[in-house]
Amino acid sequence: MTPAEPGAGWSRRRLLIGGGVAGAGGLAALGADYASRRARASGTDESPSLNGEVRIPFYGAHQSGITVEPQAHATYVALNLKKGVAKKDLARMLKTITDDAARLTQGVPALADSEPELGTVPARMTVTFGFGPNLVARVAGDAALPEWLGSLPEFGIDQLEDRWCDGDLLLQFNADDPFTIAHAVRMLLKDTRSSADVRWVQRGFRRAQGSEKSGTTMRNLFGQVDGTVNPQPDDTDFKELVWNRDGWMTGGTSMVIRRIAMNLDKWDRLDRPGREQSVGRNLANGAPLTGVNEHDEPDFTALTPVGFPVIPEFSHMARARTPDRSQRIHRRAYNYDDAPEPGKISNSGLLFVSYQADATAQFVPIQQRLDELDLLNEWTTPIGSAVFAIPPGCDENGFIGDTLFD
Amino acid sequence: MTPAEPGAGWSRRRLLIGGGVAGAGGLAALGADYASRRARASGTDESPSLNGEVRIPFYGAHQSGITVEPQAHATYVALNLKKGVAKKDLARMLKTITDDAARLTQGVPALADSEPELGTVPARMTVTFGFGPNLVARVAGDAALPEWLGSLPEFGIDQLEDRWCDGDLLLQFNADDPFTIAHAVRMLLKDTRSSADVRWVQRGFRRAQGSEKSGTTMRNLFGQVDGTVNPQPDDTDFKELVWNRDGWMTGGTSMVIRRIAMNLDKWDRLDRPGREQSVGRNLANGAPLTGVNEHDEPDFTALTPVGFPVIPEFSHMARARTPDRSQRIHRRAYNYDDAPEPGKISNSGLLFVSYQADATAQFVPIQQRLDELDLLNEWTTPIGSAVFAIPPGCDENGFIGDTLFD
Repeated sequence: MTPAEPGAGWSRRRLLIGGGVAGAGGLAALGADYASRRARASGTDESPSLNGEVRIPFYGAHQSGITVEPQAHATYVALNLKKGVAKKDLARMLKTITDDAARLTQGVPALADSEPELGTVPARMTVTFGFGPNLVARVAGDAALPEWLGSLPEFGIDQLEDRWCDGDLLLQFNADDPFTIAHAVRMLLKDTRSSADVRWVQRGFRRAQGSEKSGTTMRNLFGQVDGTVNPQPDDTDFKELVWNRDGWMTGGTSMVIRRIAMNLDKWDRLDRPGREQSVGRNLANGAPLTGVNEHDEPDFTALTPVGFPVIPEFSHMARARTPDRSQRIHRRAYNYDDAPEPGKISNSGLLFVSYQADATAQFVPIQQRLDELDLLNEWTTPIGSAVFAIPPGCDENGFIGDTLFD
Repeated sequence: MTPAEPGAGWSRRRLLIGGGVAGAGGLAALGADYASRRARASGTDESPSLNGEVRIPFYGAHQSGITVEPQAHATYVALNLKKGVAKKDLARMLKTITDDAARLTQGVPALADSEPELGTVPARMTVTFGFGPNLVARVAGDAALPEWLGSLPEFGIDQLEDRWCDGDLLLQFNADDPFTIAHAVRMLLKDTRSSADVRWVQRGFRRAQGSEKSGTTMRNLFGQVDGTVNPQPDDTDFKELVWNRDGWMTGGTSMVIRRIAMNLDKWDRLDRPGREQSVGRNLANGAPLTGVNEHDEPDFTALTPVGFPVIPEFSHMARARTPDRSQRIHRRAYNYDDAPEPGKISNSGLLFVSYQADATAQFVPIQQRLDELDLLNEWTTPIGSAVFAIPPGCDENGFIGDTLFD
């Protein structure tokens, strides 16, 4: 069978899964494994008819949960390493979670999968690992710590809660199907339970796959188009902006995750022009207030008839921008909407997530400008913050993080 | 324009939404309203190309969140009425939430929608209302209380926590898009905030739309096919089993919602044959242990070579079944998977939801048999329980619950 015979692998898989005989789970796993190895070898998927069958390659130069078009659901789990867990334990754990993540993202049950039937719907899942400073130092000593890895500088707007901050190991799950994520989280937490404890779990969502046309910029729960200007993997300078080039981190990146509470009740009291001025874009389609379409370049020099800037100087967009093109980040945010606390009717916000080669050089100056002055600060409060080193990808003989062990 | 011109309404809507001019939100709303009124008049949808555009009719003899093919996401919100809220306040509140639910399910922003751009993706949303005994009595006195409305009898297996039990008003949201639900929940909680406080929120999921072929029976987090035998709206006796025929509740139904914690760690220690015997079905495709395909009739008389029943008498399936065909219920369960509590790696289970004309006559005897003896009880614990009266549907001149006010 050659790649010129599309679908043949999938038919075989369907046949096996539909077999309905005792032991079909094991056969199905073989079939799926076969299909996924073929797909990995050719680097393409075989045009499955259901989104649940779409697989994102796991192995490669970079981890895959950064550049793929954002999936509908995200779960981020941060773990604390247990005392006494040594370098060799960590290598074993990382090998195990790498292997299980590679399988589950391809629709193949985990190695010791207790519910193999729940592992067969990849739904574009990616699983991405990140390291906090404690894990890096425990494996390779302080010398291996990237300068930017650690807590961010304090910002005046922050009201950080320890329960949403930091961590030694990050597991990032993204998929279009919440059930796929639930099973993968469970499998990987079984792999890590002897070495680490759950520190926090944060879940977010975007529009479901199939709700909107592919490529539509997401909105946040304020109703704003959020993420229009964002370096994309096919941009010429994406590599320089996102991929790190230092030692064991070469091909990796830094990740900033901040939990931004959004005060929807206070936002309700702001009228539509006020809302549009707070960010500098209209609400209908996200166009700059000086433009017509979402991707129009803003004109910060344009004035209203009475002489004020059309895009206020203190708007989020004006403050976030800089002519320094090295100060850019690749954002991949999700909305969150948890059960309200007693007496409240919402508990909502944004899981701000960005990837950049160097968090200190790229993220921090933007955040410092926003911290000094940004109309949006009136309605938003950062309550969680963490930075992780996202190691490069690996091939089938390696594991995520192996460059740290060399 | 006639119904013979499919898509014309949708093109108009797209044109308006894509307009990108100030005020386009309002025009888009008009366009969507127009399209949705046409769809309601013809009783059909206009074959939208995106699942996000699919609308389920709101008005009709029954509320629509019971018979529609289960959507991917569910949020159930129970509220406590505030002290001093009188019959006329409740009528006003119910009119408001009926109107906003009717709009949002059709992709039309709520009447005072603070983020109208978030209300335009219906994604098969249904919003369904239910009443607890306190609300019914406050409006129409104790005489209006259905006999079955109140707490269920105590079951020996229950370990109920007050934070997951009871309530005066239930808001049930189902949609294929989590963002659609988040916005609708927010809008309806704004409508109810002067009359009621949030008591609990429970969220659940199934496979995403597009993950599996339509009509696939869901699995629970134990990996079991869950819900094979379930009266469906096109069954001849569905009407008798589900729709109530007593006074103001005619055309309504009773809803039981139980939060069933599933001990995944303990389940892990059970081997595959043990798991299959606990429920009486195989794990691969949900077929009875005496059959080959999921929907095969089980043979409770079949014996193993050594003389034991192939389907154990104490299995979940054997205990749930009865020859009394009036003791059946329409199930519509969701999985839940919340953040683990400290020291744990999962917090998972099933939101068991069933609808039946009379909860006492239909649900209680099944649950009593399962309470007495059911192998699955070893791994599951009911921790929440509530019964609600789901009033009939209404037409565009009425509101949900209006028959209680006559």
